[in-house]
Amino acid sequence: MTFALDARLAADTHVIAESALSLLLLMDDARYPWAIVVPKREGVTELFELAPADAAALWSESLALGRAMTTAFLAHKLNVGALGNVVRQLHLHHVVRQVGDAAWPGPVWGHSPRVPRTDAERRDVVARLLAEPGVTARFTPR
Amino acid sequence: MTFALDARLAADTHVIAESALSLLLLMDDARYPWAIVVPKREGVTELFELAPADAAALWSESLALGRAMTTAFLAHKLNVGALGNVVRQLHLHHVVRQVGDAAWPGPVWGHSPRVPRTDAERRDVVARLLAEPGVTARFTPR
Repeated sequence: MTFALDARLAADTHVIAESALSLLLLMDDARYPWAIVVPKREGVTELFELAPADAAALWSESLALGRAMTTAFLAHKLNVGALGNVVRQLHLHHVVRQVGDAAWPGPVWGHSPRVPRTDAERRDVVARLLAEPGVTARFTPR
Repeated sequence: MTFALDARLAADTHVIAESALSLLLLMDDARYPWAIVVPKREGVTELFELAPADAAALWSESLALGRAMTTAFLAHKLNVGALGNVVRQLHLHHVVRQVGDAAWPGPVWGHSPRVPRTDAERRDVVARLLAEPGVTARFTPR
């Protein structure tokens, strides 16, 4: 079955890069550097439903992305999560948290409506993220 | 450095099983089957800080646990997350969600105070979880 990105994910994010397995999305919320990895596997909703090779690749992507985001954006803490209560299509969040940010110390999910970035802000965040070797080794900019 | 379970995690959970890498905790909240995997690695706060072999083992434990919880408790959706904004010691949540549960469709983290289980309820949940082959293959009851 052909993969199509969930319409709600597409509406809230920009697709910034792609790997053999996944799309890399940037959430359009100026308050947090927030990236989402979406395996291009139609109909998968849970991590454990991935084929073993896909699960291993996703884990490698997630660890590298998390390290890169922490470095690039000087995270106090990284939040990683697969929830999917609203959007069923499997997607793995990576959110840079700072002490005192809008939702601190609670989770960002369900906290408040997102605050869109300007185009210039987005270009800056994307450039910083895609300059990290751990990201460029695994994802091709789009 | 010797590993010691964070005092806040210890206060909110029961240690129900152990692997070579991890402790398996059951959150004492009657509203959700909620298990937490804690790698016994002192000073680690982020997933990407784990040694590669530990990270791979944690991922394997997480996938097996998630599948087992979904089967044992008929989850509508599993929520998996590593936050650590309050408790810095690395811990990976696995929460069975049901449409209409107390926090649905929001995250359980930061939602409301936990509702403790009775001893009988806890024994039942632990027995069901530890009866799953994917759990018994990886964890030894404690």
